[in-house]
Amino acid sequence: MVAASMRRGLSMPADVPDLAARLAALLGPAGWSPDVGGAGRDWLNRWGAPVLGIARPPDTEGVSAVLRLASEAGLAVVAQGGNTSLNGGAVAMPGRPTVLLSLNRMNRILHIDPTGQTATVEAGVILQDLHDAVAGQGMEFPLHLGSEGSARIGGLIGTNAGGSHAARHGMMEARVLGLEVVLADGTVWNGLRPLIKDNAGYQLRKLFCGSEGTLGIVTRAVLRLEPASRVMATALLATEDLASSVRVGAALRKTCGDLITALEFFPEEGVALLERHVPNTPRPLATRGPAYLLVELASAVAEIPLGDILENRLADLLEQGLVLDATIATNEAQRRSLWRLREEIPEGQRREGMQIKHDIAAPPARLAEAVAEAIRAAQVVQPGVRAIPFGHLTDGNVHFNLSPPENRGFEGQEWALSAAVYDVIDRFGGSIAAEHGLGQAKVALAEVRRPRAERDLMRAIKRALDPKGLLNPGKVLPEHESTRKDGP
Amino acid sequence: MVAASMRRGLSMPADVPDLAARLAALLGPAGWSPDVGGAGRDWLNRWGAPVLGIARPPDTEGVSAVLRLASEAGLAVVAQGGNTSLNGGAVAMPGRPTVLLSLNRMNRILHIDPTGQTATVEAGVILQDLHDAVAGQGMEFPLHLGSEGSARIGGLIGTNAGGSHAARHGMMEARVLGLEVVLADGTVWNGLRPLIKDNAGYQLRKLFCGSEGTLGIVTRAVLRLEPASRVMATALLATEDLASSVRVGAALRKTCGDLITALEFFPEEGVALLERHVPNTPRPLATRGPAYLLVELASAVAEIPLGDILENRLADLLEQGLVLDATIATNEAQRRSLWRLREEIPEGQRREGMQIKHDIAAPPARLAEAVAEAIRAAQVVQPGVRAIPFGHLTDGNVHFNLSPPENRGFEGQEWALSAAVYDVIDRFGGSIAAEHGLGQAKVALAEVRRPRAERDLMRAIKRALDPKGLLNPGKVLPEHESTRKDGP
Repeated sequence: MVAASMRRGLSMPADVPDLAARLAALLGPAGWSPDVGGAGRDWLNRWGAPVLGIARPPDTEGVSAVLRLASEAGLAVVAQGGNTSLNGGAVAMPGRPTVLLSLNRMNRILHIDPTGQTATVEAGVILQDLHDAVAGQGMEFPLHLGSEGSARIGGLIGTNAGGSHAARHGMMEARVLGLEVVLADGTVWNGLRPLIKDNAGYQLRKLFCGSEGTLGIVTRAVLRLEPASRVMATALLATEDLASSVRVGAALRKTCGDLITALEFFPEEGVALLERHVPNTPRPLATRGPAYLLVELASAVAEIPLGDILENRLADLLEQGLVLDATIATNEAQRRSLWRLREEIPEGQRREGMQIKHDIAAPPARLAEAVAEAIRAAQVVQPGVRAIPFGHLTDGNVHFNLSPPENRGFEGQEWALSAAVYDVIDRFGGSIAAEHGLGQAKVALAEVRRPRAERDLMRAIKRALDPKGLLNPGKVLPEHESTRKDGP
Repeated sequence: MVAASMRRGLSMPADVPDLAARLAALLGPAGWSPDVGGAGRDWLNRWGAPVLGIARPPDTEGVSAVLRLASEAGLAVVAQGGNTSLNGGAVAMPGRPTVLLSLNRMNRILHIDPTGQTATVEAGVILQDLHDAVAGQGMEFPLHLGSEGSARIGGLIGTNAGGSHAARHGMMEARVLGLEVVLADGTVWNGLRPLIKDNAGYQLRKLFCGSEGTLGIVTRAVLRLEPASRVMATALLATEDLASSVRVGAALRKTCGDLITALEFFPEEGVALLERHVPNTPRPLATRGPAYLLVELASAVAEIPLGDILENRLADLLEQGLVLDATIATNEAQRRSLWRLREEIPEGQRREGMQIKHDIAAPPARLAEAVAEAIRAAQVVQPGVRAIPFGHLTDGNVHFNLSPPENRGFEGQEWALSAAVYDVIDRFGGSIAAEHGLGQAKVALAEVRRPRAERDLMRAIKRALDPKGLLNPGKVLPEHESTRKDGP
């Protein structure tokens, strides 16, 4: 049906039905379906143009065959893993004949090396499955984010995913040692070397991270693991404001920086939403913020007295008046309950009603100032608009989500609100796309903000690797170049 | 004089003298010299073709002006920092009119941000100067290598340098948050964003790392710092062989992986050379190897009882028989003396006479097997040849240096010996260039080993960013493509 509606909506090359038949013949019934079901739309159901169908090849050779055929026929290919993109990165844009290419059948964990501390996996492996597989071997894959039960390795590489542990353990590109990638013409590049140090050529393995399937399609990866944590200490702190939280974070990083796995900030307004909408989110502190900081330390070294260390630090900070109140989790249930306050904020905000999400980053030293400025700018656009900024302190990464004034909508100001937020981020030298990718939502916004030299560099690379422009067209770079002749 | 000899030796375009005059006019006497002195040759004095002269621009605009002129005139440009390359990466290859471009006047540390824990520096800053500057602010830049008193940031980025701390703190590309790069036509790309998470485009900042000045010339960088270590524990262990050291390393990483800053291995043969040639290198252990492992733990957290932790681990390993003997440094002098055993091996080998150096990496789990195999292969080529393999255990990075049989030379077998070593590394899926770059020494060796797809990818990127092929020509990719039509 989707394919049919596509044929109605767009002018197709005459051989499109023939292409579908060729793909069906190539991949068999398990590997090709003209009915894409839910895969045709992103999970927020905001994006996704009709496509010819969905290919589900069982292996790298199958991916290669699809790309070869697509390259010959001028067919666009959009790679898809868990389809958890918040920005419409893994579904089609309108305007040209397209197929989805799902990596989900390629979900094998091929090898776990306890000496080299690496895992070699197919692109369709779900993050949580990798967590489970390596946990049994005294190791961990230290990438944690909300969608880990659905997000798949290929998509995490494509968006260069981050999450709460990235400040210590790096974004996805820091975890990728080797890659196998199918290139635009179907050629397979085997760069699956399990090596930390490998400089016998350009760092291609890094270039594909964050490229959203526009330069090639990742089929396998060698990922770097870490020893599993044996001790952990978690605390919730109340502070005067985000600026105080930034100072607390800087102080903690100086004195226990190498043990910190998470420094998550969120405001009292977020906790108030939980109180209103989300059950089982009791307040662990008598003090009501106004700002909160969740601190977690962890180590593989069993003898480190993490609880004592954290207690000493908090005592100092309380004495200095930088921290207003604090509690340390004394068991796993308490720990989970502190994390719920942070993790359920998006759910609380969703239940409150409509919202506008922004995944931005500011230089950490200017985080508080940038957030305050962004709130002011948004409120100039729509007085009473409510900001619930939360995120990862060390990275300066803010999920700057807006709710409309109580009992009202955004009244058509959505774009103006986002523009105001992004303009502030520009002024502070930040990023409008920290860890969710650009997808369809931000591709034009990113393009106009890029310095001319950066746009030209990126286009030169795109043209070099995908000369026909068939890989996830319109993502990362808009199909039509910005008309701005000079950059900021 | 150099320029004159160059004009004799090579056919120059008619306007070469004119170009020198234009560069002199552009840069003034402080910024241009036809006499390049020692900069014309690498510090091992093995490479370096004559050049037109050396440009020493004072700032990014000066670098841009040189590249603009070079691009118009078809002049090749070789960027140079500390000129410490072991592979001739920062001096000219013969065959075309070339200028050296020294970044050494651009040696300012522009900004240190204690909250964001970053340093913004010019490319000509010496690594040791950066260490000293941040130490005063309770931070460290955790990249350590033999040439840190001379190597400069631009060259460290260009070769994606590693060193002894890379397994914990990453190679140079992991420390680079933002870059300013002058592109082949003189355009300045300002990507100096001090952000960990920034995915508003391709990861260009990573692509330039390890590109040896062939894609652009790095002029400034934002580097990520770490909190300074407050505690440290260092031990020297004797083991049966490298295979045992690998097992010890794996065990240590499981139980104290996040505290390990260095795991350095070296053989008894290396220590014997020190005994013979290098004063003040007493043996700290009664047991003579046969293999040694230097272990260092460090943390910013003052209360961690690192000495006790290391002692407990070593007691376990001694009891299991994996470690034959061990000593823990009890003061800084002892610590320095343990490190000298590792660090002076190259000097010991140099004083022993001629040698052939190889900077290779094997998958860590197969390191011992690969090294044993490489020794056997070298000894088949020249019976009696002596291998002194030492390096960084976690990375599988071996400095596999050969000395000839006692009182003999290599008897013309240098290339055959290296070929035998590299062939073994290929079979084990390793890298022939771990952390020293390819330079002139390895560029052809790397080219023939690359899978066809990788060669094509790299050439496509090179053409896209440097269409005239003027940036450090012949480095990373040979000027003439390998005639091999298919890859391994």
